[in-house]
Amino acid sequence: MSANKLVAPEGRADAPARETARRARTRERLLDAAYRQFSEHGINGASIEAIADDAGFTRGAFYSNFGSKEELFFALTERENRARLETLREHFSRLVAPLGETGGKPAPAHIEGIIADVMSFQPDIRQWCLMQSEFRLLALRDPDVAPRFLAAAQSFQRELATMIDTAVRAVGVRFRIDALDLTRLLVDQFDSAMQEAILAGDEDPDRSVREKVMRTLPLLVHSLTTTLDGD
Amino acid sequence: MSANKLVAPEGRADAPARETARRARTRERLLDAAYRQFSEHGINGASIEAIADDAGFTRGAFYSNFGSKEELFFALTERENRARLETLREHFSRLVAPLGETGGKPAPAHIEGIIADVMSFQPDIRQWCLMQSEFRLLALRDPDVAPRFLAAAQSFQRELATMIDTAVRAVGVRFRIDALDLTRLLVDQFDSAMQEAILAGDEDPDRSVREKVMRTLPLLVHSLTTTLDGD
Repeated sequence: MSANKLVAPEGRADAPARETARRARTRERLLDAAYRQFSEHGINGASIEAIADDAGFTRGAFYSNFGSKEELFFALTERENRARLETLREHFSRLVAPLGETGGKPAPAHIEGIIADVMSFQPDIRQWCLMQSEFRLLALRDPDVAPRFLAAAQSFQRELATMIDTAVRAVGVRFRIDALDLTRLLVDQFDSAMQEAILAGDEDPDRSVREKVMRTLPLLVHSLTTTLDGD
Repeated sequence: MSANKLVAPEGRADAPARETARRARTRERLLDAAYRQFSEHGINGASIEAIADDAGFTRGAFYSNFGSKEELFFALTERENRARLETLREHFSRLVAPLGETGGKPAPAHIEGIIADVMSFQPDIRQWCLMQSEFRLLALRDPDVAPRFLAAAQSFQRELATMIDTAVRAVGVRFRIDALDLTRLLVDQFDSAMQEAILAGDEDPDRSVREKVMRTLPLLVHSLTTTLDGD
């Protein structure tokens, strides 16, 4: 198949393309506004009017893009998860690939370096944590929201698990527990450290989350890995 | 000191004792009602009127016992944490003490049995999880509530950590990580399994939490313990 087949004849596709791009920008601005409003006022406190207004649009523009506040919330979660996974993927491949086969388990200090680097690229810990806590509670209380929330969380964990599994296999080790179970363990530790940093009123939550996570994660990963030949 | 000194002369202390007992019963009934109302309607949804009414008291009776809804919530958390710790303590000592010195690390299957037994005594997983999630979110958002919430959570974790540490030492092993860090890990895994069971709409959340926790906890404890002489 020639690549030319995928290119629209000159000029023809411009108007729909512009429309699509404009629509995408509107959605992005609504999502940005929603992030600000949700994390500041909570799900119940943030009205659709306030979100539309913050983004510089009308209520009508909101509803032509999202059916409800919950739908917007799911779109926002998906966008943020996507962005985080992309960043993690880049850093994993940049950091882990050059290690090659070490012929043994990487030392905790080594694992520590990788986790520290990967974690230093998690933006907006405070806002993200508040938004997630809020959304999780809504899902825990609302059986209509719960399945979709759980599916989004599990999809994130599965992608991250595959990424982590690929990374450790490239280094010549494997986990002694299911990669998904381990991923859950890491994600839970991270979430819990985020919450604790916020509760403690830490001025630099990002740094204190890193410090907390470093107390357990490297040893945890080290203890739960073994060489591919069962060392 | 004679034990007799602690006993009030006959008849004299009856009235104040009755008053104290009556007051304690009122508090207990308000706490029971609050548990029902909070877990059903959430913190914001449960009014002081509804709680007092559910307990069969007036608003006045509420305020003569608790200064605010948050204070009631803290009292409830403390009561529930206390009850859970007591139950755990009984089961730990009943289960772990007879093991004695095994002269090596207990096998994961053995640890599994202990955890299964300890966990089978966690009542009301759903209600407790909802109440805790709600309270945690309130604390995350309110800097006035946060320090006290964090202190209560940490005090629970410290007591549990001491209990776990004592139990494993009695068996002749020690943790390769700080007992408090390990406890946090276990508590987080438990919380996360509770939330997932509720989100998944499991008909028997207690059972599915046990199943989930069993996938990781025994191996985790096994991997992170070593014999006292560093085996």
